[in-house]
Amino acid sequence: MPAAIVESFISAIEHHDLEFALTHLSEDCEYDNVPMGSVNGRDAVRATLAPFLGMFDAIEWVTTHQVASGTAADGVVMNERLDRFRSGERSLELPVAGLFVVRDGHITLWRDYFDKETLLVAMAALG
Amino acid sequence: MPAAIVESFISAIEHHDLEFALTHLSEDCEYDNVPMGSVNGRDAVRATLAPFLGMFDAIEWVTTHQVASGTAADGVVMNERLDRFRSGERSLELPVAGLFVVRDGHITLWRDYFDKETLLVAMAALG
Repeated sequence: MPAAIVESFISAIEHHDLEFALTHLSEDCEYDNVPMGSVNGRDAVRATLAPFLGMFDAIEWVTTHQVASGTAADGVVMNERLDRFRSGERSLELPVAGLFVVRDGHITLWRDYFDKETLLVAMAALG
Repeated sequence: MPAAIVESFISAIEHHDLEFALTHLSEDCEYDNVPMGSVNGRDAVRATLAPFLGMFDAIEWVTTHQVASGTAADGVVMNERLDRFRSGERSLELPVAGLFVVRDGHITLWRDYFDKETLLVAMAALG
């Protein structure tokens, strides 16, 4: 099921295991942060995510709604999330809607919709 | 099917028939534009949408992905859209991810995720 692949991917991120998370992506996966631009390929996703995720002691992405169609060979997953990040005593919470296109058991497109200003204001508050 | 309710709702908006669109919403429907706030109830949705939609000669919401689960009695629909609006020679396009919770044949929650700055810059360009 495509949802299981997405859930395993997110669980790996929550467990600070970016390398395992990346194995869920196709080699040429597109990762699109809609208001901030997109990158292509596992290496580019690693380069984008590693510095960001490395800022935080705890990561929890709470999925509030999720719907999926198709199979792990050809499927689509969308979820609504509250992406929570904690650094010491401070934390950040970002409302996100994500789209995941799954082909042949791997995520080929990961597109997150959120408000850029909401993220930047929350990042600035972390100090 | 919950997707049919959402598609009929969007079709009514595209046809400038806001009153018919509103019949797809529950009386106490929450309409949440994530970066801009939410309103509750058909009257409040009308008051929010009518001035905005009235600015445009043509409205087209292109659904690029859609997934749904459940039934019209208890279902969830998420879609990825390019919401296009045209006024005279000028047009605006906003990437959106939408969540629709459907209960008893009506949309009880409509939540759109997008980047506020993208919308405001596009609105300003309309002149």
